[in-house]
Amino acid sequence: MMNYKMLIQYDGTRYDGWQKQGNTGNTIQGKLEDILQKMTGEYVEIHGSGRTDAGVHSIGQTANFRLNKEMDGNEIYQYVNKYLPEDIAVIKIEQADQRFHARLNAKGKTYRYRIGTSPATSVFEQRFIYHTGRTYHVAEMRRAAEFLLGTHDFKSFCSNKRMKKSTVRTIDKIDIVELDGELRIDISGDGFLYHMVRILVGTLLEIGEDLRTAEEIPYILSGLNRELAGKTAPAKGLTLLEVRY
Amino acid sequence: MMNYKMLIQYDGTRYDGWQKQGNTGNTIQGKLEDILQKMTGEYVEIHGSGRTDAGVHSIGQTANFRLNKEMDGNEIYQYVNKYLPEDIAVIKIEQADQRFHARLNAKGKTYRYRIGTSPATSVFEQRFIYHTGRTYHVAEMRRAAEFLLGTHDFKSFCSNKRMKKSTVRTIDKIDIVELDGELRIDISGDGFLYHMVRILVGTLLEIGEDLRTAEEIPYILSGLNRELAGKTAPAKGLTLLEVRY
Repeated sequence: MMNYKMLIQYDGTRYDGWQKQGNTGNTIQGKLEDILQKMTGEYVEIHGSGRTDAGVHSIGQTANFRLNKEMDGNEIYQYVNKYLPEDIAVIKIEQADQRFHARLNAKGKTYRYRIGTSPATSVFEQRFIYHTGRTYHVAEMRRAAEFLLGTHDFKSFCSNKRMKKSTVRTIDKIDIVELDGELRIDISGDGFLYHMVRILVGTLLEIGEDLRTAEEIPYILSGLNRELAGKTAPAKGLTLLEVRY
Repeated sequence: MMNYKMLIQYDGTRYDGWQKQGNTGNTIQGKLEDILQKMTGEYVEIHGSGRTDAGVHSIGQTANFRLNKEMDGNEIYQYVNKYLPEDIAVIKIEQADQRFHARLNAKGKTYRYRIGTSPATSVFEQRFIYHTGRTYHVAEMRRAAEFLLGTHDFKSFCSNKRMKKSTVRTIDKIDIVELDGELRIDISGDGFLYHMVRILVGTLLEIGEDLRTAEEIPYILSGLNRELAGKTAPAKGLTLLEVRY
């Protein structure tokens, strides 16, 4: 068995997310597995670094899969890209160590959330930007971000109410950058709960709108209750930027 | 009457082109006129610098319109962008000289055509790139471009067979740039016939694929016959970059 690692980019707009859902569902994983099956004549299971929700995009999604027959990485790259729709692309593919597993070996991830702040939309990137057309108090948002850094129980920032596993995660970095007509929030951590990045962003935006203060963050965290945090920001503004191993 | 000049960007994918077609048709001009009518309570006619075909995009489309009542440019900008769909944006709006007319005063235009040459698509820009995944002989294409520069009768590069007006135009510049995974063709001229840029690009691509030689260009030009030139390249790769006054 040969093990392969690949880097996948996608515009998630049209898809029901990364992860295959039974036999139905228009998913990125499903599209890729179908093509690898066509190529090899066998079912090939793809392991992604993690799910991305419906409508979320990827610049850095990483996955691995095993083939019974050894094939050249470039040969697979050519074949797969020939059959993929135009909103999914495999950027890189290479042989990996037998033990490499894209999800289990992931050490950290970075997500980017983009907010359109100008009255005019960015017409060429509007599929990847949550456009609000308003301005935010970025200094207050940065102050709030400080409270989120480090290791906490992020249960209040998780949409899955029946989460049985640990909801403790570590956030290493939150960068809030103001660009021309755009606010960009990059969040790096060791892993993220269901909807966690979008709830973090939704809460930070409410702070930027003066609907909340930065000081509410410790209170929200310690409450361990989803209802204390802000709204879940829309999927379209979110992109998985990088997976670290 | 106040005269206003505006700069409009759009992702043309969803539209039947710039120009309003009777009462039907999902056009950029139609969307803008509807919003100006809502704003003023009167019919406002918008004059674009020229048509763009269905599926063609704009970074630099310019238009003018007149209002009976003087309004602040910024006020119109805010109002219009509030009601425009996310794939159309007014980037700038300012009062113009009474005599300014976006079509009649246009001195030149630049169009950009983008071709995807990598096996993997550019998933975030695929709506604006004609993806072929092949490589081209760019030196031969540049040689062909030399033959197109200057003032010629471009009848062979016009899809409108019943064109009664002059088909003589001047091309000032053709830049063919190779980027990572992309071939970019910028064409500047005093004006362009129906489908002219797309037929020029289609012909250049056939030369880049060695299906034709650069020396065929003078023959195609002098034949004054659309059938001599290459295929019309798809609309999606084309963007109106700039209109000069």
